[in-house]
Amino acid sequence: MFKKVLVANRGEIAVQVIRALHEMGIKAVAVYSVADQESLFVHLADEAVCIGASPVNQSYLNMQAIISAANLTGCQAIHPGYGFLSENAEFAKMCADCQLTFIGPRPEVIDQMGDKENARQTMQRLGVPVIPGSPSVLKDVEAAMQAAHTLGYPVMIKAAAGGGGKGIRAVSNDQDLAKAFRTAQQEAQASYDDHRLYLEKIIAPAKHIEVQVLADQQGHVIYLPERDCSLQRNHQKVLEESPCAVITTAERTELGQLVADATKKLGYTNTGTYEFLMDQQHHFYFLEMNTRLQVEHTVTEMVTGIELIKAQVQIAAGIPLKIKQADVKIHGVAMECRLNAEDPYHDFRPQPGKITRLIYPMGTLGVRIDAGVVTGSMIAPFYDSMIAKIIVHGINRKMVSRKMHRCLLELTIDGVQTNRTFLAGLVADSTVSRGTYTTAYIEQDFLKGWLSDAQAQVSSTH
Amino acid sequence: MFKKVLVANRGEIAVQVIRALHEMGIKAVAVYSVADQESLFVHLADEAVCIGASPVNQSYLNMQAIISAANLTGCQAIHPGYGFLSENAEFAKMCADCQLTFIGPRPEVIDQMGDKENARQTMQRLGVPVIPGSPSVLKDVEAAMQAAHTLGYPVMIKAAAGGGGKGIRAVSNDQDLAKAFRTAQQEAQASYDDHRLYLEKIIAPAKHIEVQVLADQQGHVIYLPERDCSLQRNHQKVLEESPCAVITTAERTELGQLVADATKKLGYTNTGTYEFLMDQQHHFYFLEMNTRLQVEHTVTEMVTGIELIKAQVQIAAGIPLKIKQADVKIHGVAMECRLNAEDPYHDFRPQPGKITRLIYPMGTLGVRIDAGVVTGSMIAPFYDSMIAKIIVHGINRKMVSRKMHRCLLELTIDGVQTNRTFLAGLVADSTVSRGTYTTAYIEQDFLKGWLSDAQAQVSSTH
Repeated sequence: MFKKVLVANRGEIAVQVIRALHEMGIKAVAVYSVADQESLFVHLADEAVCIGASPVNQSYLNMQAIISAANLTGCQAIHPGYGFLSENAEFAKMCADCQLTFIGPRPEVIDQMGDKENARQTMQRLGVPVIPGSPSVLKDVEAAMQAAHTLGYPVMIKAAAGGGGKGIRAVSNDQDLAKAFRTAQQEAQASYDDHRLYLEKIIAPAKHIEVQVLADQQGHVIYLPERDCSLQRNHQKVLEESPCAVITTAERTELGQLVADATKKLGYTNTGTYEFLMDQQHHFYFLEMNTRLQVEHTVTEMVTGIELIKAQVQIAAGIPLKIKQADVKIHGVAMECRLNAEDPYHDFRPQPGKITRLIYPMGTLGVRIDAGVVTGSMIAPFYDSMIAKIIVHGINRKMVSRKMHRCLLELTIDGVQTNRTFLAGLVADSTVSRGTYTTAYIEQDFLKGWLSDAQAQVSSTH
Repeated sequence: MFKKVLVANRGEIAVQVIRALHEMGIKAVAVYSVADQESLFVHLADEAVCIGASPVNQSYLNMQAIISAANLTGCQAIHPGYGFLSENAEFAKMCADCQLTFIGPRPEVIDQMGDKENARQTMQRLGVPVIPGSPSVLKDVEAAMQAAHTLGYPVMIKAAAGGGGKGIRAVSNDQDLAKAFRTAQQEAQASYDDHRLYLEKIIAPAKHIEVQVLADQQGHVIYLPERDCSLQRNHQKVLEESPCAVITTAERTELGQLVADATKKLGYTNTGTYEFLMDQQHHFYFLEMNTRLQVEHTVTEMVTGIELIKAQVQIAAGIPLKIKQADVKIHGVAMECRLNAEDPYHDFRPQPGKITRLIYPMGTLGVRIDAGVVTGSMIAPFYDSMIAKIIVHGINRKMVSRKMHRCLLELTIDGVQTNRTFLAGLVADSTVSRGTYTTAYIEQDFLKGWLSDAQAQVSSTH
């Protein structure tokens, strides 16, 4: 086993990785930017090395500085956390070249899954369902209509040369398609000097469902119970749960075995997460694979009892998985809320600043708080605005929702504005309580009502 | 269900009761002394009433002031926590007289169990084993010897008029008994004007094992997995676990059914804990019954998933227990350490003062911290010196010990001296890890070695 591991990240995930290492009897080295020198993760590490200025490209993305820090402090491995260099194949390769174990999958697999079209084709080959699209480039509007009928409306017109949202149109019938096809073609031509178009089925309303796997170097793979991460705003996850309230045991097993098989065939190691859209008939469509730990891995830990950071470290050290698929059980329900320094009343603008008072609602059965900050900490403008993850585990959804609501109402934080009241409103919402929400729920339904309620409350108190 | 409940306690237990009430949708009223006006529990309550000066007899034991506060704020019930008025039958009766529900058993049962000799005789009648003693008062040394042979040495000579340690002698053979009998008689005569003596068997080495019950007003009783609270210093519990490492399933079931039967026959309601000594042959001997929630109820919550404060409130409101005996399962292992403001290097002297920095080692799977203080809080000299309970839950003893050790090493607290390093040493100790310790372990074995190691470390760094 490693004696010393460098943690190439910051904030709450750096704190959690350091704790996991300590519980395994491994020394932890932190690397930090100038802005983070007083941070909790630096305080908790056994050693800490400043790797550069506050902007991320000068510090947390500075591969050479991080590798040097690992070598200077005598580390045997690097844990990348999430974000930053965690899905950077070049960094993973650089680690290997420097005799440092990158705690994650092989660089080639990171590369393969990092290219989204490559990932999609690979999954299709491995029998994982992907979002249906027109088989080839469409020569004219008639061909497009025929393809649309095969796929079924609504469909998305996309530029073959694509990316960046140019040439994209959602259409729901022949008439709209006829109208949109020409303008999309022109836009594609103007943007990419390539007018070719294709169609993709729109999966909506849908849930965002993801399945995490663990795969050791000896070829053993297990899948973990799914997470429902449909509650999103601006494509950012807001509240995550496990298991999904509406997925059956049979569906769980089928999807799990599918991804476990794909993982084996990929020769994938360490941990990774398959993200899917699930339509209302419970068909799954592969979106992408994250070749790293995810923010919301905590809810999986709570319901399975498996510690995922420790599993990552053990796998990277060559230790076979001890747990077998049959041992993976779901105990109750877990929910996570992401507490951010942002202003929910003004389009969730980030709110950097100094936290002058912070009292976490810890305590009572089933409450876990993974935080990177304490009273006196700064929320720096250079990084994401997450303050803490509040995670609640319990025997059923009702108990978990109530407990989460209590935590959010109780939390005391002064100095920076947060999304606390927004989260509390969300947790108390009946659609959220039932677990029947889709990815569009916050932006298309919840937010407007919540904002007008909040406004009414403000008016009534004046 | 109650709409508003008064919490007649302070510190961490007041915080936890308030949280439980909030999770049940019930308003919580705090009562506080002058010294506690800035306390966390006051901050968290919906309303708070100052009930007097800092000394406990002027505030937390001031029954009339507490009842008045409950009436003034429109409470329907009072939760007494532990300590203070929680086992005061007069207070329970006063609540009833004022149409307030006392969240605990009936006053008569509190009274019955509060008188230790009455409790012992009651238990014997109900078939619960008690510590064997000589059947009647001993007329002379020959009668004493005969009784000692029946009981088996070692035995304790006790004054029949007793209490307070006067006339008490431990003896382990006839010779010692002959010598001690006369002086004990004289001491008893001098102290109580009553020279009568009796003998009680000494149960040592022994473990302190306790079993908590829940009993509703409809006559349903369940017992919960035992706690091992043998790690004590100066008769104060230091570290508690559930389940006990050396008790078998058959022993657990037998003891549990015994206390559940006794509880039913007593007509006992709410929650209570039967404390036993267990000898090395795993015979159990009743010590006393606590007719209230205990500090260490948390470890039971962690392994069973049952929230005990909520259960108390529901029972007091007349709601039948939903959980049946067959539903009570043990999931893994849980351990609690009591972090106190005291100096382990100087006979654990209490260390009141202001906490200038406090960073709890929260986070990672299975860590729970029940605390009544935060950065800036005062540890007042008027009350007990407990800062927080650190509770860890995991799949096995090894995982739990390591996690607890990490938490204790990580905890940052400035401003007051604590027993943190003592607890860390204890958790890392091999006898403690195995769970084979007895009630004498800390004082007779561990403490001396730990102190000399600590001294050696100090010397070597100078």
